[in-house]
Amino acid sequence: MSPRGLLITLEGLDGTGKSTQARSLAAWLRRRGLQVRHTFEPGGTALGRRLRTLLLRGGEPEGIPVPEAELLLLMADRAQHVAQVLRPWLERGAVVVCERYADSSVAYQVFGSEVDGELVERLNRWVTGGLQPDLTFWLDLPVGQRLPGAGAPERDRIESRGEAFFRRVREGYAALAARYPERIVRVEVTGKPRRAVQSELRDVVVRRLGERLQELGWEAPVRR
Amino acid sequence: MSPRGLLITLEGLDGTGKSTQARSLAAWLRRRGLQVRHTFEPGGTALGRRLRTLLLRGGEPEGIPVPEAELLLLMADRAQHVAQVLRPWLERGAVVVCERYADSSVAYQVFGSEVDGELVERLNRWVTGGLQPDLTFWLDLPVGQRLPGAGAPERDRIESRGEAFFRRVREGYAALAARYPERIVRVEVTGKPRRAVQSELRDVVVRRLGERLQELGWEAPVRR
Repeated sequence: MSPRGLLITLEGLDGTGKSTQARSLAAWLRRRGLQVRHTFEPGGTALGRRLRTLLLRGGEPEGIPVPEAELLLLMADRAQHVAQVLRPWLERGAVVVCERYADSSVAYQVFGSEVDGELVERLNRWVTGGLQPDLTFWLDLPVGQRLPGAGAPERDRIESRGEAFFRRVREGYAALAARYPERIVRVEVTGKPRRAVQSELRDVVVRRLGERLQELGWEAPVRR
Repeated sequence: MSPRGLLITLEGLDGTGKSTQARSLAAWLRRRGLQVRHTFEPGGTALGRRLRTLLLRGGEPEGIPVPEAELLLLMADRAQHVAQVLRPWLERGAVVVCERYADSSVAYQVFGSEVDGELVERLNRWVTGGLQPDLTFWLDLPVGQRLPGAGAPERDRIESRGEAFFRRVREGYAALAARYPERIVRVEVTGKPRRAVQSELRDVVVRRLGERLQELGWEAPVRR
């Protein structure tokens, strides 16, 4: 059964403003009378919250997941999230705004950590059951300009990796954007005030998803 | 680098005496002067202990892993266990006695839960890096005759599945034993005293691994 709602994902390195923008986008859609669910990976379910702790904190030094375990825990988190959050909300016609989704595993694990790309794509297909976003924003910022600690009080285990890692992750997002131009929209956030980025996202949503939003109950004429 | 030690695994449904037999086998090998590590999956590492809790208890009802997440958590546990326990001990020449390993995922997930077999085998190869047991004991007992609560004070989430599930799991073990006759030895435990099973396991170890045990420092003549 194909979900009736709309899935909008936000991607990009930490410190690019994903959480702020997702919250703002969700609130704006809600004000237009739509049913909206704002969620995120990893950690968007009860199981996921516990997995997120294992992934980002690691506990005792020997508790830090090896690279294979890290990928598998992220995929387990996604399987649970798709089953318990994304599909149920989409099936009741909601707009789901999700921070990070399958593209993150390609950017971070395949490009960043150099895990076999075909395996990651296969696992993504398996855990999502083929569920693709209708629209993906890639919030982009040169690696050196990320805002330290945005979204997290201190840098977590993944965020404390070196710059070379994040440069590869960014290249991963660029490769994905080139591969899926009809789905992924790059939004340059360098030096832009938060409200300018917000406004850019809203424009793209209206332009690309306007008709489908009206079907879901959008209450204002589709223009800002 | 090929490990120099020996990996002996014990498989079978819960309630067939795996833990007791593994402990006894490890102690017997240790008394012969060998370096021995007794371990188990899931839960043989610091990360694994936390994953085991998520797998067997599930926490809040919505915290119970969906089938895809369950498989991925088990595989994450195995990746960590191979990297932090099995390989290091094997590389220093130990005999590792391990309760449950890759065969469990085939029996429980592929046969029991009907997950795609090719995916499970691919993940098994990836997380183990191809590390195969030198010898596997399948402790076998008709489903209706398992000892309730052996090894666990109460039946956990997986153990509380229905009999049809366990019948499929047992068929899975039978299929594996037919496929790998040189590695997997079926030990019928129905109605046998614990010491009779112990003695059977020791005979097989001596017969199949005697020469390699001598290379690892076995101190007695290789006969019981």
